[in-house]
Amino acid sequence: MENAELVSSVVVDLERLRARKPLVHCLTNHVVKGFTANALLALGAAPAMVEHPEEAAQFAGMADALLVNVGTLDSMQMVAIDAAIPAARAAGRPWVLDPVAVGPLEVRTRFARRLLETSPAMVRGNASEVLSLAGEAGAGRGVESGDEARAAARAAERLIARGVGAVLVSGREDLVLGPGGRALVANGHAMMTLVTGVGCAMGAIAAAFCAVSGDSFRAAVATAVVLGIAGERAAETARGPGAFQIALLDALYSIDGATVAERVRFA
Amino acid sequence: MENAELVSSVVVDLERLRARKPLVHCLTNHVVKGFTANALLALGAAPAMVEHPEEAAQFAGMADALLVNVGTLDSMQMVAIDAAIPAARAAGRPWVLDPVAVGPLEVRTRFARRLLETSPAMVRGNASEVLSLAGEAGAGRGVESGDEARAAARAAERLIARGVGAVLVSGREDLVLGPGGRALVANGHAMMTLVTGVGCAMGAIAAAFCAVSGDSFRAAVATAVVLGIAGERAAETARGPGAFQIALLDALYSIDGATVAERVRFA
Amino acid sequence: MENAELVSSVVVDLERLRARKPLVHCLTNHVVKGFTANALLALGAAPAMVEHPEEAAQFAGMADALLVNVGTLDSMQMVAIDAAIPAARAAGRPWVLDPVAVGPLEVRTRFARRLLETSPAMVRGNASEVLSLAGEAGAGRGVESGDEARAAARAAERLIARGVGAVLVSGREDLVLGPGGRALVANGHAMMTLVTGVGCAMGAIAAAFCAVSGDSFRAAVATAVVLGIAGERAAETARGPGAFQIALLDALYSIDGATVAERVRFA
Repeated sequence: MENAELVSSVVVDLERLRARKPLVHCLTNHVVKGFTANALLALGAAPAMVEHPEEAAQFAGMADALLVNVGTLDSMQMVAIDAAIPAARAAGRPWVLDPVAVGPLEVRTRFARRLLETSPAMVRGNASEVLSLAGEAGAGRGVESGDEARAAARAAERLIARGVGAVLVSGREDLVLGPGGRALVANGHAMMTLVTGVGCAMGAIAAAFCAVSGDSFRAAVATAVVLGIAGERAAETARGPGAFQIALLDALYSIDGATVAERVRFA
Repeated sequence: MENAELVSSVVVDLERLRARKPLVHCLTNHVVKGFTANALLALGAAPAMVEHPEEAAQFAGMADALLVNVGTLDSMQMVAIDAAIPAARAAGRPWVLDPVAVGPLEVRTRFARRLLETSPAMVRGNASEVLSLAGEAGAGRGVESGDEARAAARAAERLIARGVGAVLVSGREDLVLGPGGRALVANGHAMMTLVTGVGCAMGAIAAAFCAVSGDSFRAAVATAVVLGIAGERAAETARGPGAFQIALLDALYSIDGATVAERVRFA
Repeated sequence: MENAELVSSVVVDLERLRARKPLVHCLTNHVVKGFTANALLALGAAPAMVEHPEEAAQFAGMADALLVNVGTLDSMQMVAIDAAIPAARAAGRPWVLDPVAVGPLEVRTRFARRLLETSPAMVRGNASEVLSLAGEAGAGRGVESGDEARAAARAAERLIARGVGAVLVSGREDLVLGPGGRALVANGHAMMTLVTGVGCAMGAIAAAFCAVSGDSFRAAVATAVVLGIAGERAAETARGPGAFQIALLDALYSIDGATVAERVRFA
């Protein structure tokens, strides 16, 4: 797609998200559950965290999309994830994989690589995580990434070749790769790295956009653009990461198509 | 009780809460633990989340009230809840049931219905949850409610008939039902639905009021009025759900009897 | 150390923390994970919560320090803690024990006392918790402390005699005890007790300072001074505990050596 088309698709998908209020089932890490739920609510989606394995399977078919984030993976959550993904797929719901800290940590790395066999609509991670997930060495020590997003382009292509719908590599610039497209989103602000859960909320927002967009690549671009612009607007008023965290939620709440069209920047 | 009497009882119970600082044992869902604790602290109560089954039983007898919220129920938390409720009852402490997403999700629905046999001082839920808990069909898809509070009046009456001390059905208006009384509280603001955990904090505040009020119905009215007014005041300054979340905590901290008397609205 | 030397050491350690960005592995309680992560990020450190036992052991050797907080201890977390501490020690990393609610609750009290055998670099608790950890009776009912920090001085000395690197007893004044030193830090603000997780974040900040300071006593003083001053600054603008929570993060972000030198107060 051309950039102009991409901008239109972001505006359309944002309107769809607000109209349809997709219910996102989040099997995510314990640190960020509250912030993730608030980010989805602020943007116009609906969150739910259902972790009992029986219920996770049942709920995955009721929700509009599923997020799997392995940030604080434990054995009980693995069972819930293994129950939820097939149920979501059986119901035709997209699911997004956020491979937090995959690479240095072995249990989650094996687990996340196995999940690749079950057709995620999107993978959302930093460069180090995407490199590791694809089987290449990254430079991260866990949740931080030592690699720029562009460095993960080849790894992202390998994930696409294995059937992942789209890959969103977040970093100073966010790289989006799909089977037939590529975009580099330049929106965002450094303050986003000083609030816990902004990256994890990005995964949840990606799942919400997958639910309303017909296409994973479009959904990934919309996610990077909307969150990036919201981060820029929040940074205009916030003096520190506390105020920024709150302003980011307010910016997700107030962002509209006109703001997107005005502020979107592709690199 | 007449409305004028109810207003007086809210003012008195708010003063009691501030004076006694009841310790509320919260067995609640993972998404909202931080916000619930902050809401209790802001209002003047003290929160504690003790989940190890042995300790949960021990602590239930030390705390002034117990909250059971099944929002992210798992098998370990079920054991803790089953240990805590008898201990709270043996010590004469009230306990409040918040049946989050009861209805569509089977494990928690069976579990919450069983808990009804153990005499909750109050049930706090939206209309869909209260309908489902009482064995009638609700319209919810989990955490959202498609039913107005008034629609759950008959279901609430059935819960009262089965020994529940009071039922607080939250919605645009909050319906409170007790064995001998009924009130419809019109305070509140739509922004409260855009912050995760406001409903769950309501359950915790209800437990705090149960600890200081002699009566579940009074406690439920006080909860709906105080939280509703705090929500209205927060909405006066907040441009979005981020700022609202913070302003709500500040409003719980600053609300006093004069503000209650001035702003309370019964429908 | 003289007070002037202590002030210099706080300023130096704050600069080191900002330069080295220590990665703190937090095995902490569920209520405060988000706030703890945000406090570390705001100050300039990096948080990670890795709880799977296998990964916790692996990660403890990668991180720069370990925090163990028993606030919502359960059997799975005990296994993770028992795996992480030996790994941290084997890698030469300091670890900090935060004995939340030790005393009234038996499982965690036995557990925390056993952990004392594994050489914590620091214990951070309120007076009641420190008294109980050392085997003396406290006056707390869990997370609140009924004892002033000074009252725990002898108990803190006993912990030091048993090999704990330093003890930080928080209260209206914070008492710091090391093998060869003692300080009473008068910075802080009462509003800090109305936000959940401020004490728990103190334990995490203590671990971050242990990672960059050569000395546990210095690290404990730096923790008490920096968090105390941040609390005072936050209270200058916040009208309630909601705004205070956010302002505290911003104050941790903006505090510098000049502010420390100007505002530090020893009692």
